[in-house]
Amino acid sequence: MSAAGRPGRTVSTRIICARNGSVYSRVDELATEEPLEVRVAYFEAGVERRRSIAVTMRTPGNDFELAAGFLYSEGVITGPESVDRIAYCTDIEGPQMYNVVTVHLRPGVAFDPERLSRNVYTSSSCGVCGKASLELVRTVCPGRPVGDLKLWPELILGLPRALARAQRVFARTGGLHASALFDAGGDLLLVREDVGRHNAMDKVIGALLLAGKLPASNTIVLVSGRASFELVQKAVMAGIPVLAAVGAPSSLAVELAREFGLTLIGFLRGDQFNVYAGAERVEGLGAGAGTR
Amino acid sequence: MSAAGRPGRTVSTRIICARNGSVYSRVDELATEEPLEVRVAYFEAGVERRRSIAVTMRTPGNDFELAAGFLYSEGVITGPESVDRIAYCTDIEGPQMYNVVTVHLRPGVAFDPERLSRNVYTSSSCGVCGKASLELVRTVCPGRPVGDLKLWPELILGLPRALARAQRVFARTGGLHASALFDAGGDLLLVREDVGRHNAMDKVIGALLLAGKLPASNTIVLVSGRASFELVQKAVMAGIPVLAAVGAPSSLAVELAREFGLTLIGFLRGDQFNVYAGAERVEGLGAGAGTR
Repeated sequence: MSAAGRPGRTVSTRIICARNGSVYSRVDELATEEPLEVRVAYFEAGVERRRSIAVTMRTPGNDFELAAGFLYSEGVITGPESVDRIAYCTDIEGPQMYNVVTVHLRPGVAFDPERLSRNVYTSSSCGVCGKASLELVRTVCPGRPVGDLKLWPELILGLPRALARAQRVFARTGGLHASALFDAGGDLLLVREDVGRHNAMDKVIGALLLAGKLPASNTIVLVSGRASFELVQKAVMAGIPVLAAVGAPSSLAVELAREFGLTLIGFLRGDQFNVYAGAERVEGLGAGAGTR
Repeated sequence: MSAAGRPGRTVSTRIICARNGSVYSRVDELATEEPLEVRVAYFEAGVERRRSIAVTMRTPGNDFELAAGFLYSEGVITGPESVDRIAYCTDIEGPQMYNVVTVHLRPGVAFDPERLSRNVYTSSSCGVCGKASLELVRTVCPGRPVGDLKLWPELILGLPRALARAQRVFARTGGLHASALFDAGGDLLLVREDVGRHNAMDKVIGALLLAGKLPASNTIVLVSGRASFELVQKAVMAGIPVLAAVGAPSSLAVELAREFGLTLIGFLRGDQFNVYAGAERVEGLGAGAGTR
């Protein structure tokens, strides 16, 4: 908690460490985890209505970006022109006001709370399956990534080092996921951290959205963990053509990337990486591919 | 997809590998990620009703345990006596039937769909905060862990090796989280894997519930990733007195563990670990603690 009563990104606490047989007590830094409630204020027949649509456990910081990125990924807003303003909830007193963010839609922006993906999933009469999940992305996705981005393996291999240099809170707590955005030359554009990996990605996308930079053609996003369906979905929605992960991708992540023309890289560590989809964007792979 | 049309735990696909400057193509195993819809069938005034309550992206396998553990963690069911039967949805044809699980409650078991935690969170008039999250656990938690479990550091340090030996799908895909349950002597009781870490924990708790073994006094649960609020919440609900994580805990995870008397261990790697809460269950820490 900072002087202003606003939750900080880390919290100090005393812990006990056991190291190679010796034991001692020290003060440690923990990554802050606090709930964030996202509300949408919208107009229906000229009357302003408010609806709470999600609570996510997140690390405080870049909360407006998180809310905007989340709503964009869910297909609720389509660009900065959808948003009138974003604000903390001033009805609430004390530090809790920083845990509720309201996104005010512009008059005329349609919003149907029932259309959120969770409901779409569960109202599907044929049940749920990977195919239905892909279909859902198809209905909200603005299109396939565009641009003529080409990457050399050396550039890809350098991304984790650039992220490590920039991941400030992680260095102190070891407890945060990161999403980092790079330009086509491998220069770091922005990095966002969170206890939740989806939140870190939503913060990146929200920052792009609020700056009017979506779709983010000719960029690369690197995630510190594994590549799930939802992370690929968010990259596809944002028009980011390349998603690289330090960890493994899932089956559905690969399927979605292949269908939507995203380059999906996994196990990016040290001097190696795997390409699961969209290998045509990586130079120097063609000749050797399939030789073993 | 197995011969029976049921999704398997892994999927094979051809990928391109870049290693130390050379490039080749090979067949790789991916961890399967597919949606699972959890439905509850319950009686209201003598009439059977059904309600879809969640869709989670999961790795197929132990689906009934996952559904039972999820409902237990959410406070919907309190033990095996709440459950009449659990079944895949036979209204649906083809492999999708394996992505919908219905938990049939016994007649007389009360179920209020509005009481699920997401709704409780968002209807709180004072907004949301860490305090409200702890309060919510207080309302559904059956009590503090009981038993007189004591652990020696050597036993704790041996847990990750036992998990690594047992984590079969991870070895092939590198893409799964695990939760492993141990007895007080450090012997592995069961291990469950999933692309989602909460799902892996729910599968462990569901297995315990269906076997009539909750609360799980005198056990230890080890998780492969970080310790979040939700993982500590699930351990507290299940009466598991010790949660050990390979990664870092969050601020709210530590707060919850301290309030509910859970021993929380983090950064359990190699020859070291940290104790964030409940150090009284770890032998040999008392004398040295605070000496540095």
